[in-house]
Amino acid sequence: MSATLSAGTAWRDRLRDWIEGPQVQRLVTALIVVNAVTLGMETSSALMASVGPLLRALDAAILSIFVVEIALRMIARGLGFFRDPWSVFDFVVVAIALVPASGPFSVLRALRVLRVLRLLSIVPSMRRVVAALLASIPGIGSIAVILFILFYVFAVIATNLFGQAFPDWFGSIGRSMYTLFQVMTLESWSMGIARPVMEKYPYAWAFFVPFILTATFTMLNLFIGVIVNAIQMEEKETRDETTAAVEHAAREAVVGASRAELEALREELRALQALIEARLPPPSSRGQENPRPGVPLRGETT
Amino acid sequence: MSATLSAGTAWRDRLRDWIEGPQVQRLVTALIVVNAVTLGMETSSALMASVGPLLRALDAAILSIFVVEIALRMIARGLGFFRDPWSVFDFVVVAIALVPASGPFSVLRALRVLRVLRLLSIVPSMRRVVAALLASIPGIGSIAVILFILFYVFAVIATNLFGQAFPDWFGSIGRSMYTLFQVMTLESWSMGIARPVMEKYPYAWAFFVPFILTATFTMLNLFIGVIVNAIQMEEKETRDETTAAVEHAAREAVVGASRAELEALREELRALQALIEARLPPPSSRGQENPRPGVPLRGETT
Amino acid sequence: MSATLSAGTAWRDRLRDWIEGPQVQRLVTALIVVNAVTLGMETSSALMASVGPLLRALDAAILSIFVVEIALRMIARGLGFFRDPWSVFDFVVVAIALVPASGPFSVLRALRVLRVLRLLSIVPSMRRVVAALLASIPGIGSIAVILFILFYVFAVIATNLFGQAFPDWFGSIGRSMYTLFQVMTLESWSMGIARPVMEKYPYAWAFFVPFILTATFTMLNLFIGVIVNAIQMEEKETRDETTAAVEHAAREAVVGASRAELEALREELRALQALIEARLPPPSSRGQENPRPGVPLRGETT
Amino acid sequence: MSATLSAGTAWRDRLRDWIEGPQVQRLVTALIVVNAVTLGMETSSALMASVGPLLRALDAAILSIFVVEIALRMIARGLGFFRDPWSVFDFVVVAIALVPASGPFSVLRALRVLRVLRLLSIVPSMRRVVAALLASIPGIGSIAVILFILFYVFAVIATNLFGQAFPDWFGSIGRSMYTLFQVMTLESWSMGIARPVMEKYPYAWAFFVPFILTATFTMLNLFIGVIVNAIQMEEKETRDETTAAVEHAAREAVVGASRAELEALREELRALQALIEARLPPPSSRGQENPRPGVPLRGETT
Repeated sequence: MSATLSAGTAWRDRLRDWIEGPQVQRLVTALIVVNAVTLGMETSSALMASVGPLLRALDAAILSIFVVEIALRMIARGLGFFRDPWSVFDFVVVAIALVPASGPFSVLRALRVLRVLRLLSIVPSMRRVVAALLASIPGIGSIAVILFILFYVFAVIATNLFGQAFPDWFGSIGRSMYTLFQVMTLESWSMGIARPVMEKYPYAWAFFVPFILTATFTMLNLFIGVIVNAIQMEEKETRDETTAAVEHAAREAVVGASRAELEALREELRALQALIEARLPPPSSRGQENPRPGVPLRGETT
Repeated sequence: MSATLSAGTAWRDRLRDWIEGPQVQRLVTALIVVNAVTLGMETSSALMASVGPLLRALDAAILSIFVVEIALRMIARGLGFFRDPWSVFDFVVVAIALVPASGPFSVLRALRVLRVLRLLSIVPSMRRVVAALLASIPGIGSIAVILFILFYVFAVIATNLFGQAFPDWFGSIGRSMYTLFQVMTLESWSMGIARPVMEKYPYAWAFFVPFILTATFTMLNLFIGVIVNAIQMEEKETRDETTAAVEHAAREAVVGASRAELEALREELRALQALIEARLPPPSSRGQENPRPGVPLRGETT
Repeated sequence: MSATLSAGTAWRDRLRDWIEGPQVQRLVTALIVVNAVTLGMETSSALMASVGPLLRALDAAILSIFVVEIALRMIARGLGFFRDPWSVFDFVVVAIALVPASGPFSVLRALRVLRVLRLLSIVPSMRRVVAALLASIPGIGSIAVILFILFYVFAVIATNLFGQAFPDWFGSIGRSMYTLFQVMTLESWSMGIARPVMEKYPYAWAFFVPFILTATFTMLNLFIGVIVNAIQMEEKETRDETTAAVEHAAREAVVGASRAELEALREELRALQALIEARLPPPSSRGQENPRPGVPLRGETT
Repeated sequence: MSATLSAGTAWRDRLRDWIEGPQVQRLVTALIVVNAVTLGMETSSALMASVGPLLRALDAAILSIFVVEIALRMIARGLGFFRDPWSVFDFVVVAIALVPASGPFSVLRALRVLRVLRLLSIVPSMRRVVAALLASIPGIGSIAVILFILFYVFAVIATNLFGQAFPDWFGSIGRSMYTLFQVMTLESWSMGIARPVMEKYPYAWAFFVPFILTATFTMLNLFIGVIVNAIQMEEKETRDETTAAVEHAAREAVVGASRAELEALREELRALQALIEARLPPPSSRGQENPRPGVPLRGETT
């Protein structure tokens, strides 16, 4: 049983090494790029009229390879497959294409191109950059929550105040939030939204100007959070390097400074030794045995 | 009297511990979230038609609890309640709902949702972020004053120059300041405002372009002030950590460097001791008592 | 002659001390604020109809005081007055009001309010902030020159390509530069300018998109120049503080680390002394005089 | 043969020294500026009517000089000319003017002004700034690739979803990418594009809002990459200076701290010497010769 299990594991290990090895990965990368081109060509009705069947066949073939690849990776990894977020991402963008794209799900047909995003998960350098991008998100989480609360509160106020007169913009909380998002991006906020509203409610500026100041100031702090975070990571490295450089510098300084002082002390010790030797002749001269006649001072030997 | 006062104080202390304790705070937080949902639902006329009375009753009930909570906190804190800005904030956003929202104050009815902002004051992590946001304001105060002076000066000029021809945009200082705020956000500044003005006053660009350059440059410096401030705080922490790391590094360097040198000195001292012992036999051999015959050198014992 | 000159100088020094002293400066500051209000009130035709003559009289009175103040400062400072840019600024904004504001110079009447900007030169804290703002300009000079060259080149190309078809936007180099400035601020660049142009010249996007990328990238670097400059100044201070903190830390480390080691050495020296004292009895016991009988070791007295 | 070759090389070296020397470079710089002015004047039909032939003649003369200059530099440098990107840039912007500007290439006539950009390559300070600008590009390369992939994916989706209903905006991948670029710059994204699309596809916001969040967040990180890079370079210098300052500070601290301690040790050594001298009279007094009678302690002589 144990041997069987071990054999089974070895087989899966070999499968994993092969499916996640450089050769298969290069092939998949190439197929993603080819698929990106064919999916782009499928948007052209002229091309679809002439080489449509070929494009569809190519797309189906590449999709089959992707499905087989993901299936093999699932077999090789077992449940561990779903613990790696990159694998889940690959699974989802490929699975989208397998949903029957008809009726309410017809929009999913347009999302097939999402599988081009697998480039971000399969090319290691892309993967690192995306991981760095995502790493900057948690640091801004609490500000994002505050921003959402602000949006909600302003949206409820706007719906209450302007909802009846401007149902397209502020008719419901959802519409108000969309309009406030537009206002926050400063797109046509005045000529398009605020001035028409002010024609009916002359004091509407007292709603829009504070909202813009609050929202952009919060956004600014959200950006600053990301910037400071990035600089902080940079600084941490810098600090470690600085500490190492300082340790070296301090050691050098100590060695340099102490050596002179200690050399002076050693000189004094030698003078003391000379004094003792001068005033105390070897015991032999006073008729005594000398157990250690020539004890050399370490300083003289080195 | 003193005992009564003490008993009264103890009673208020117990009240404060309870009302500001985790249980009541969790309940209030939950009620704020529920209230946020009900206030949002009240904006939907469909929902109001079906469950309107229920929503209103729920809102009234939650408001009553908030009023009681704030009142108890005021009793527990006494005048100290109004010294804490967060408490004043809670008081104001709850008090808004108690103002009879009719006639000229009907807008206050829409502001009831501001009490959802209590989430920012009651959740400790939110409170910290908001405090950090507010902390970045004083550093930009003087630039904000300069920006206001610039706005005022440009608004007076614009009112004088363009007020008669374009009363909607520049008819009064207030309207000019609003329009200049729009121009500063770069919203439709050219196609919407400057080009129409330039059709009547061809040199109007000499007003708008310098204003945009001055205002955005000042805003940029305002933003930079916030960024540099945030980095500076970060740096202060970094500096403290660096100093600690450097202190450790310097200590290590000193210990490492000194130990070798001092060990050498100690060696010499031992040699000196050996010399003295060799040349000066114990006094007993010369017929003298030795008060401390075996004084051990510290270096030999450790 | 020398005495006369000296007396004259002393008189001018006293004048300068008075005119630039805190009392006069406070008065002038107050008058600037009052003048800012009156100039603002003059923009309201309703106010002008009721209290117009009073406002004009007040304005004239304040202007007279400003003229006298500037004249006295010119007398006190002599030619040195024009060497201080703040003084020249004061001179220009006050002189504007003295130009007869009629005919081609009628626009100068609107510029009288510029004298409110004297607040920036008279309030020391404002002055510092403005000086800091201006200090960040030289560092971006060379990028500004590059930006101007880019603008000029793109403006000439735009005038050649689109000038005939769109004379309002690209009819001359001046108009092209204004339009490109608008495009750089991203205001209506696509819906307002590029899409209409593309209807006649379908490849116009190959002009606008590269221009936007180049101009915003250069602007970004201009901003970054200002930010890095500000951070650099900050860093210099931080570095000095860090160095001081590190010096203290290193000193502490050295003292802490050395003390233990040196104390050990001192212990050994004391042991050596005890050894010598034990083996070498005082000379008196051997019938000799002792010149310094009780030489105390420093370590024992402290 | 070798002498001939050497003579030929020497001749080319002299040519290079002359053509790239300060005199010729100053002349070329002046001609570029003059040419910038004449090319600008050529855009004015009024000026062309009066001094058109003169401007054209001047332009032709300056172009001839540029052609000769570039030709001489090519002769002097040989193939090395094309290895220097600045030289290739000069070659291209001058060569544009030599292409017969008629028929499909008539647009090239407008590009003649690109030769004004030679100012950026000929003025050393400009060259440094442009090199610094270009140096910040590689660091953002991988994020730019991710941004392009995002654009491509969203463009294919938009073409599939909205292409039929809005052919002007999303009719092809190219049009979709242009429209998405406009949306990323936030220009009229809502009032101009998203709201009209939402009238036909009410859920279109679920396409535009995520696109804006993703694209601006990626752009933000691209900007931050440039900023952090610039700060990092700054920091490296700062770190080196800090390390030097710290080394000095640590040395000072060590010297200051050690000196006191070591001085104390030295004091003890002197006391020990005094003790020995007091208790051990010179050998002569005990009838012995003293080989080194007056050994001075180093501490007493310095």
